[in-house]
Amino acid sequence: MKYLFVLLFAGLTAGAQVQKEQLNLMPWPQNVVINEGNFNLTKNFKVNITGNPNARIFGGVTRFLRRLDGRTGIFFEQGFIEKLNEVPNAELQINCTKSGKIGLYEDESYHLDITSNKITINASSDLGALHGLETLLQMLQNNSKSFYFPVSKISDFPRFTWRGLMIDVSRHFQPIDVIKRNIDALAAVKMNVFHWHLVDDQGWRIEMKKHPKFTQLASDGMYYTQEEIKNIVKYADERGILIVPEIDVPGHGSAILTAYPEIGSKVITLTGGTSEKNIQGTAIATYGIERNAGIFSPTLDPSNPKTYQLLSEVFDEVCPLFPGAYFHIGGDENEGKDWDANPKIQEFKKKHNLKTNHELQTYFTMQLAPMLKKHGKQLMGWEEILTKDLSKEAIVHSWRGPNEGMPAGQSLVDAVKKGYKTVLSNGYYIDLMYPIASHYLNDPMPKGANLTSDEKARILGGEATMWTELATPTTIDSRVWPRTAAIAERLWSAEDVVDVENMRKRLEQISFRLEELGITHIRNKDVILRNIANNQNIQSLEEFSKVSEPLKGYTRNKGGTEYQMYSPFTLFADACGPDAKDALAFDAAVNQYLANKSADNKAKVTAFFNKWITVNKDLTALSANAPLVQPILPLSKKLSDASQELLLVLDNKSTLKPPDLKSLIEQCNTKDHADVELSVYESLKKLI
Amino acid sequence: MKYLFVLLFAGLTAGAQVQKEQLNLMPWPQNVVINEGNFNLTKNFKVNITGNPNARIFGGVTRFLRRLDGRTGIFFEQGFIEKLNEVPNAELQINCTKSGKIGLYEDESYHLDITSNKITINASSDLGALHGLETLLQMLQNNSKSFYFPVSKISDFPRFTWRGLMIDVSRHFQPIDVIKRNIDALAAVKMNVFHWHLVDDQGWRIEMKKHPKFTQLASDGMYYTQEEIKNIVKYADERGILIVPEIDVPGHGSAILTAYPEIGSKVITLTGGTSEKNIQGTAIATYGIERNAGIFSPTLDPSNPKTYQLLSEVFDEVCPLFPGAYFHIGGDENEGKDWDANPKIQEFKKKHNLKTNHELQTYFTMQLAPMLKKHGKQLMGWEEILTKDLSKEAIVHSWRGPNEGMPAGQSLVDAVKKGYKTVLSNGYYIDLMYPIASHYLNDPMPKGANLTSDEKARILGGEATMWTELATPTTIDSRVWPRTAAIAERLWSAEDVVDVENMRKRLEQISFRLEELGITHIRNKDVILRNIANNQNIQSLEEFSKVSEPLKGYTRNKGGTEYQMYSPFTLFADACGPDAKDALAFDAAVNQYLANKSADNKAKVTAFFNKWITVNKDLTALSANAPLVQPILPLSKKLSDASQELLLVLDNKSTLKPPDLKSLIEQCNTKDHADVELSVYESLKKLI
Repeated sequence: MKYLFVLLFAGLTAGAQVQKEQLNLMPWPQNVVINEGNFNLTKNFKVNITGNPNARIFGGVTRFLRRLDGRTGIFFEQGFIEKLNEVPNAELQINCTKSGKIGLYEDESYHLDITSNKITINASSDLGALHGLETLLQMLQNNSKSFYFPVSKISDFPRFTWRGLMIDVSRHFQPIDVIKRNIDALAAVKMNVFHWHLVDDQGWRIEMKKHPKFTQLASDGMYYTQEEIKNIVKYADERGILIVPEIDVPGHGSAILTAYPEIGSKVITLTGGTSEKNIQGTAIATYGIERNAGIFSPTLDPSNPKTYQLLSEVFDEVCPLFPGAYFHIGGDENEGKDWDANPKIQEFKKKHNLKTNHELQTYFTMQLAPMLKKHGKQLMGWEEILTKDLSKEAIVHSWRGPNEGMPAGQSLVDAVKKGYKTVLSNGYYIDLMYPIASHYLNDPMPKGANLTSDEKARILGGEATMWTELATPTTIDSRVWPRTAAIAERLWSAEDVVDVENMRKRLEQISFRLEELGITHIRNKDVILRNIANNQNIQSLEEFSKVSEPLKGYTRNKGGTEYQMYSPFTLFADACGPDAKDALAFDAAVNQYLANKSADNKAKVTAFFNKWITVNKDLTALSANAPLVQPILPLSKKLSDASQELLLVLDNKSTLKPPDLKSLIEQCNTKDHADVELSVYESLKKLI
Repeated sequence: MKYLFVLLFAGLTAGAQVQKEQLNLMPWPQNVVINEGNFNLTKNFKVNITGNPNARIFGGVTRFLRRLDGRTGIFFEQGFIEKLNEVPNAELQINCTKSGKIGLYEDESYHLDITSNKITINASSDLGALHGLETLLQMLQNNSKSFYFPVSKISDFPRFTWRGLMIDVSRHFQPIDVIKRNIDALAAVKMNVFHWHLVDDQGWRIEMKKHPKFTQLASDGMYYTQEEIKNIVKYADERGILIVPEIDVPGHGSAILTAYPEIGSKVITLTGGTSEKNIQGTAIATYGIERNAGIFSPTLDPSNPKTYQLLSEVFDEVCPLFPGAYFHIGGDENEGKDWDANPKIQEFKKKHNLKTNHELQTYFTMQLAPMLKKHGKQLMGWEEILTKDLSKEAIVHSWRGPNEGMPAGQSLVDAVKKGYKTVLSNGYYIDLMYPIASHYLNDPMPKGANLTSDEKARILGGEATMWTELATPTTIDSRVWPRTAAIAERLWSAEDVVDVENMRKRLEQISFRLEELGITHIRNKDVILRNIANNQNIQSLEEFSKVSEPLKGYTRNKGGTEYQMYSPFTLFADACGPDAKDALAFDAAVNQYLANKSADNKAKVTAFFNKWITVNKDLTALSANAPLVQPILPLSKKLSDASQELLLVLDNKSTLKPPDLKSLIEQCNTKDHADVELSVYESLKKLI
């Protein structure tokens, strides 16, 4: 009785002692020790900064205070933090030895020490201190009445130096606020690289003062001004994020060639009229901004000196906007069709003894390297840039895998063995709607590749890639988050942090907290559903979205022409995401039931069936005043039909013959409706 | 039977004939005629533009297409519209006689003619055509399977030429994306003025190239660059919106004087040490950015030539950013304390024969008029600028009312009678959380004031004012919308459009559609509630928010010091709004029951009581893991207690004495909890 009383009392004052397993930290730190006791937050809570940090720490700490304020509603007295040692006796003391440099190989480690009356963050640089503040925010606990941090010691550092996210702003332009909030979210999960894919077939997105035709003709008016870019770079710097810009050449050239067709590879053959058919000439092709998705032939002419002159001038204008040391020149998916058909280019190949288009592309790439080097930039490109003549200074971005007919990550091993530094994106294509576990368990360090420690050191890290064929400013956050947080953990945490269940539990909390940074992955789902429901109750749509996942890989937008880049993507599939919420829960219920057919276990399974039958009825009712619900109905009916029969099966009352039952379940295995698939199909199958 | 079949068939093909009363148009047009038949939307739907419009029409039509796309999911083939007469046989034909000029008195009328196979918008200018497109979007109807427009003829024009919204970006800075989406929403409800309150005690928000100290010292780093301002002006122009900038002087001067204390009015008297007490001097006071809300004394010195020199230089830099013909110089709430205490200023008054501080302020104002006139700008100011010596060219912005000890809108009548043009904001203070009906029924044209037609013509219109002491970028949209749409109707539609019930019904739909423009008033409510609930189920909070309204007028943030401008405002009150949803429904149920105590009517009332009892239980359960729920519990308990007793009262089973019952209900009349009040209190009272 006395023991119980003590426990209860502790619960009322500051919550029971938090266990390490209860913490929702992500990325999981390298070392975490929890001790007894808590640090209780009060209105008087203040922060003090000492040492020699970069000034970015002041904004970082001010933002930290406001986020803690927002979560707790305490509204601390301390407002803006503007200088060193402002409040020497503050409860949170941050000390940094030196000013952090944005880039690779910087010391990002930190030590966080929470005692019952004092918190200390010690870091080599302010970059480490910013990471420490994010961890501290994730350490926040509460009981019913107050908020506190558990007494603990954390020491932490990243496993890889390149932890990035790429966003494609060409296929769907993403305004400044999308970029900013995603940079905030990257910082929150301790990522440090934002790769800005600024140019592709579907648009040129950089203001060019010397060459205004780029934006006048090839941007649809959607681009960043140079001032906006500088502001974003500053914004990223303040959050410890390096920006790597990309201008994708020589393929993916539709936008560039829309503005400057004279450097294109395509030759138009002109023939005289009926009586002058033997008189022929050539002309420059014209190009248009691409509206579809896919791989297209417009390619820069590597044999034309004007190409290099223009690119050199472009780099002269773009490089100074980005103080970072890396510049991505794309280089992917050049199919060389227009090169093959152009006699001048064929001649050029012969003259320079370039046997293949691949060699010709390396020739092209190597012309660009000095243009970038002049501005202190190292060249980076997608893995296709890798041939024998590529400079060892180039960084190879590994992306292809089975979908492209290659073993996953093969180019990564090739590259490091040949002496190149490399970054892995194969396995991190978050736009393709694959489940989180597949990304989480994809390690940049290949297993069984037998690499030397030098070779291993050349694996810089990894990068999630968000291509935007199917993502608008409204939906992009839900495609990037929360899965990118799991990738961030893969790149930061120890190699043996691989417990998927545990990751899922923590991610739930991390995902929720991203809302405070303005990330719209949760809120905008309801916006889309309200539009689909035509302002009626969205509950049945919400429920159905918990078993529906957008078609994966490249199966949505077949052939790349079903949707155009200007299609607004306000459909049911756009409200759904991978890892549909009910799939795991249903699968667990099914497994439990199959292991032990108790009444309780059966009830858990039948509850799902009954829900899905109701959802189908409700969706049908909803559709009476909501045309956008119609495409979903055939699928919800299939799930409802299967559910009804399976209820009978579980009661041994089904009269269907096995093949008919099987076909009823098989109907749930379809990609024919509303661009989504049922995530519970595999679990349904287990029941027959 | 045959008749029924026909009706059914009609329902299946294109929906039953729409009645005028079913349309959710807002502002309600001047003339609407509905005829039989529908125009059905298909993927082939295209638009063509003819005449001599401003190029803004192309973007306007492209955006129109994408919004229609998003609502219908049809995804039209037509992408970007870039020139005149692109698709001569398009189904939607837009013709404009001339290029619209942004500003007052432009012809904004349009005629919209929908037939079963063709739609025509005829307008004098593209500004009228843009209004016509908004009306067309609001005309969209649907049956269960498809979308259509009813055959109809609408001719329309605004009643007032000034239909504005002011946003204060000083007290809480509002980033570019907030401004942009609100401009889109203004255009959607046919408003035409955005008044940008850029400078106040709490911050200077304009980049100044010649005077960088303004932003270095007085903005906390939160300001718009000149390029950003130009981009916003362009953005607004493309949507037919005039921007009127405001720099508030000579009062509200804390930020200005933080940067330039030498033009302040405050004198510091210096006294020598103990033995030299008779030796005195004066010094310039120092100022700080204001963190609280209220009226503060920092005021520019009207006797100092440097004041005028600086302001002249400021206007020289700021005026060219805004092509519009109006510049707001504030002029409000100057209490003159620092003027009274400054001997030099008192001397100046005598010398210039200025008897009162009010006259001194007019002197000050009149120095500014030529600085603005030089740039082609007319001076506008809050009503305090109005004295006998004010130039007749100035526009008087009427704002004070009973809260300031004045009859509502008195200055409006004073101004027009004295020959000034005027704009009404009294009654449109949307930040104060008053119910929508109060704003809707507030007409700029005063009743019974006996004005001549010339005087009436000087009433330009009205302006909703969104002051941001208590509004952050996360919450501001919910303070502005949807109520501003009702104000828009007051300013556009005929004087006799005053049916509040009907307005509410239409507003429900308009409010929902604002989501497609990115307005966050609906989605961000859940964000705040999720934070309060600590990521638990928010349903009970949602329900309780339907009977809770933020404290009205100036009763929240008492004395202006309870919250600071950097407080994040993530509290329950910030998720609530005026016109709480259940208040009207409950009141209707109570009235119905009191008129006829049938079992059905009783059940409607008791359903609310039972709900509120459950909500209180659920909130209590929620609070076990959500400290931010605690402040709400006393209030929800009061409503639950009253509900429990009233259930007994309705069953004639209450044993409470009348005074005790009364006191139980009176407990629901409180402002003591969570900055909200119960919107159902008045209706509860009716039951005892």
